[in-house]
Amino acid sequence: MYRTHTCGELRISHVGEVVTLAGWVQRIRKMGGMTFIDLRDRYGITQLTIDQGSSHELNEIAEHLGREFVIQITGSVMERSSKNNKIDTGDIEVKLSSINILNKSVTPPFTIEDESDGGEDIRAKFRYLDLRRNPLKRALELRHRMAQEVRSFLDSQGFMEVETPVLIKSTPEGARDFIVPSRMNPGEFYALPQSPQTFKQLLMVAGYDKYFQIVRCFRDEDLRADRQPEFTQIDCEMSFVEREDILNTFEQMSKTLFKNVLGVNIEGAFPRISYKDAIDKYGSDKPDIRFQMLINDITDLVKHSNFEVFNSADFIGAICVEGCAEYTRKQLDEITAWVKRPQVGAKGLVYIRFSESEIKSSVDKFYTPEDLKKICERVGAKEGDLILILSGETKKTKEQLGTLRIELGNRLNLRKSDVYAPLWVYDFPLLEWDQESERFYAMHHPFTAPKPEDMDKFYSSDKEQIAQVCANAYDFVLNGTEIGGGSIRIHDAEVQKRMFSVLGFSDQEAEYKFGFIINAFKYGAPPHGGIAFGFDRFCALFGGQETIRDYIAFPKNNSGRDIMLDAPSYVDESQLDELYLKSIAKK
Amino acid sequence: MYRTHTCGELRISHVGEVVTLAGWVQRIRKMGGMTFIDLRDRYGITQLTIDQGSSHELNEIAEHLGREFVIQITGSVMERSSKNNKIDTGDIEVKLSSINILNKSVTPPFTIEDESDGGEDIRAKFRYLDLRRNPLKRALELRHRMAQEVRSFLDSQGFMEVETPVLIKSTPEGARDFIVPSRMNPGEFYALPQSPQTFKQLLMVAGYDKYFQIVRCFRDEDLRADRQPEFTQIDCEMSFVEREDILNTFEQMSKTLFKNVLGVNIEGAFPRISYKDAIDKYGSDKPDIRFQMLINDITDLVKHSNFEVFNSADFIGAICVEGCAEYTRKQLDEITAWVKRPQVGAKGLVYIRFSESEIKSSVDKFYTPEDLKKICERVGAKEGDLILILSGETKKTKEQLGTLRIELGNRLNLRKSDVYAPLWVYDFPLLEWDQESERFYAMHHPFTAPKPEDMDKFYSSDKEQIAQVCANAYDFVLNGTEIGGGSIRIHDAEVQKRMFSVLGFSDQEAEYKFGFIINAFKYGAPPHGGIAFGFDRFCALFGGQETIRDYIAFPKNNSGRDIMLDAPSYVDESQLDELYLKSIAKK
Repeated sequence: MYRTHTCGELRISHVGEVVTLAGWVQRIRKMGGMTFIDLRDRYGITQLTIDQGSSHELNEIAEHLGREFVIQITGSVMERSSKNNKIDTGDIEVKLSSINILNKSVTPPFTIEDESDGGEDIRAKFRYLDLRRNPLKRALELRHRMAQEVRSFLDSQGFMEVETPVLIKSTPEGARDFIVPSRMNPGEFYALPQSPQTFKQLLMVAGYDKYFQIVRCFRDEDLRADRQPEFTQIDCEMSFVEREDILNTFEQMSKTLFKNVLGVNIEGAFPRISYKDAIDKYGSDKPDIRFQMLINDITDLVKHSNFEVFNSADFIGAICVEGCAEYTRKQLDEITAWVKRPQVGAKGLVYIRFSESEIKSSVDKFYTPEDLKKICERVGAKEGDLILILSGETKKTKEQLGTLRIELGNRLNLRKSDVYAPLWVYDFPLLEWDQESERFYAMHHPFTAPKPEDMDKFYSSDKEQIAQVCANAYDFVLNGTEIGGGSIRIHDAEVQKRMFSVLGFSDQEAEYKFGFIINAFKYGAPPHGGIAFGFDRFCALFGGQETIRDYIAFPKNNSGRDIMLDAPSYVDESQLDELYLKSIAKK
Repeated sequence: MYRTHTCGELRISHVGEVVTLAGWVQRIRKMGGMTFIDLRDRYGITQLTIDQGSSHELNEIAEHLGREFVIQITGSVMERSSKNNKIDTGDIEVKLSSINILNKSVTPPFTIEDESDGGEDIRAKFRYLDLRRNPLKRALELRHRMAQEVRSFLDSQGFMEVETPVLIKSTPEGARDFIVPSRMNPGEFYALPQSPQTFKQLLMVAGYDKYFQIVRCFRDEDLRADRQPEFTQIDCEMSFVEREDILNTFEQMSKTLFKNVLGVNIEGAFPRISYKDAIDKYGSDKPDIRFQMLINDITDLVKHSNFEVFNSADFIGAICVEGCAEYTRKQLDEITAWVKRPQVGAKGLVYIRFSESEIKSSVDKFYTPEDLKKICERVGAKEGDLILILSGETKKTKEQLGTLRIELGNRLNLRKSDVYAPLWVYDFPLLEWDQESERFYAMHHPFTAPKPEDMDKFYSSDKEQIAQVCANAYDFVLNGTEIGGGSIRIHDAEVQKRMFSVLGFSDQEAEYKFGFIINAFKYGAPPHGGIAFGFDRFCALFGGQETIRDYIAFPKNNSGRDIMLDAPSYVDESQLDELYLKSIAKK
């Protein structure tokens, strides 16, 4: 061992001891005849000193040290004259008797400080240096802690960790699979799993009762910001349970994480809201409930006036922005421009200022003060509040109001990263109709059970009826981000067949792609259900961040590239030959 | 929840309670007017009874139950008149008041019993049914326990779990990579990691000090029996350590596993043996030390007689087989035939019977009784022992003797699966010369450090000198199986460059494939080392098995196929088109 203690370990009680430390040179300062070196390792920073009286040799070595050199030192622990209460080792310093340079360092391309001066690309290329910075180290330490706590909780609840394969069969449905050519089976391909969905269901058929895994998943999608081609899930499944059992179990898991990782007690049951209510009130199926500003339907109040924009709208909705009646014309114009951006897509914005003296709106010529007052009442506005109104096609308008609500939440600092507001959203639609391909897609995935009361509709020959079927599905939402999603599954082979038929699969196709699971259901499949959490995002939110990249040790960029490795890359022709493949891409 | 208790939970203290259970019908028996049903779930078996007085309806349902039906029952817990002490619930039975069939089952293709009547292929195809059998369930439960204990130990020692990427860069060296075409980067490929070796070293460069991960690895090899294209490693790395620190840490981990998983206390330090001694004494670099029967060099005793076979041999070695002097001629002929099989490759076998009355050998005409006595003394034979002798080229002969030793260990039942004999093997050669490609290969991998005292040889221009360099590497061996291997790594960019040059890489090639790590070493890499354990095999050995297949939930067969999924499989042309690939395999 190159050290007797770590750089975060020494305290006043160690004074007088001779210690050996090893770590990185964080900083060197000279003051008077003294040299001060901050020595860093994963555990902290210890101040080293070389005083005037030290040997020439020691001073000579210190002279040639640079940032990020790796050194091993021996010295005596001394009480500091001026203590530093910002660091755990701030009461002491180590007076050096020897320095051994273990490895030199060329000058790093950016500074290894909490706030780095490196741009994103250069930090990605030198990820191993970026990872030395405290914010990233803390992010990965949080992730480590989360993983241990998740497993420890699930183990204590009788869940069995089972590893499922990574080389599986390609059954694209929804997102694209990554595929892997098989050399031993020429012309054939494995696929990387988008999730272990079918495996965990097979484990339920096998009687494993409670399964979990923290598992890598893969999706070959065009990457939007903050998506990764490989990501990690907390994947769980339970048998002989109903929705309530699953929500309770994972509510308990979340509470345990909040408590053990963040020291945050979440009191009482998590709020629950139906998909319909979430859309109606928040314009989103992943509402951020850290603040109110709910959507109010004012269609009945404002339609049938002379205002053509509202008259032609299916839906008119309003949100009440507390205390913002004094927004200037300029501010309101800016918000109007913001909602008209293509990303939001509203046609325009109507406002009502409910100030002390008067109620004033951008549609004063169409509505009387009494009309406006009714709106104020409907949205629960008090004096000093601002009301913002959007109109148009029902669902789209609600979503636009939801987007605006979040934006205002950000601007008004209502979305505090140290406030945690988890909730469950349930009763999602089972299916989505895709105009382009003229078929239904599973909103969750093809193994989600319809709600028992909707079974008649599910077997209906009428598309409208089928479209109304509710799924026995639920999402776990934290601070406006979907962290987890799951459902009670189909466990009846006939219902599963019906699902594939609703999704437009021929019997043959269903058999080819999912024969193994339809078949498995014939041998005594128990009722079962489960949930999967996006672990990267779960960690990021616990860390108070919205982007996941700092919570992944070696992430890829938006083109799916690992800049550090320079991957993907071209391979030898001989590798392709062995796989019976020819690349027809232009180099 | 479909149940109030599991099928393994009810005890005499529950008598009188009304309970609801859910599970699989294991067996139905009728005796007199009574029906007995064994209900099974992951936790156990509970006996259900329907007596003569029960409702017609209940009897009717029971009449139509079959094996593996999934049912939910309600009934009263009663004390059994004849108790079954083989199962935990053997004191009670549940007298049914209702049965609810949750799912039917067609007749399984094999019986779900400890000893199944299904062949290997049929069980692989219906893996989810095979997994219902107790031996497989217990194997996966053991694996679950192992994983939790490993993580809990390493967490307690300050190791940080860091997930490394699965989509990386292809740098084939040794085994073949699986590659994954990148759609977003046409013509380019990711590779699946053969191990996270370079990543864990980068984490050391990043200052993470102690890293671990239970991680999937991939190797596109022609599969020998009991190899899998994807397998799981316990992967670990530490900074500022020497070999001793690593061996101590992981000896402690192993002891913790033995104790917490198997209840076995391993006293004292694990034995350690050098690679050279292992080959000399056991004819293997993974010796099974559960029994003696060491190899003895008798070259000096038997060479230079009239026996041409020995005279022309580089090495003559003997093992002493205790208590087997009475082996018949037939038995000895059989052993001779066994060592002459191409898998062993010996030319012949010489034996000496050291029986009470006389010393008799198959080479009596070449050696005097005194000569033979000297051999007996050398190998430490007592009266009643049998001595077996092989001769030929030194290393090959030692290995043949090692193979014979293991075979005799099996035949004489000296390799008991409930005895655990771990040991460390160290000081492996750094490099192996490959005649065919006329180059050195790294015996471990190209990041293993030469031993400091061999540095001159490592930089020598003489191949013979280089071939003698010892690696600072070590293997963890359990009961004759290599379970783990690791080394102190190179942390100096110059030494790493030298290694690539010794391996015959051009500077350009080294830069293209491993530039990122050579570069990383320039920014203050700490001294570091690590180890990786084959988790599948570790679990199998803990379970007393030599094959890993039962310890993997969904294994592949020897052609790398998942029989259940029927993977790999052909993919749609459109999938290949998107990847700019053409398959030139014949369908």
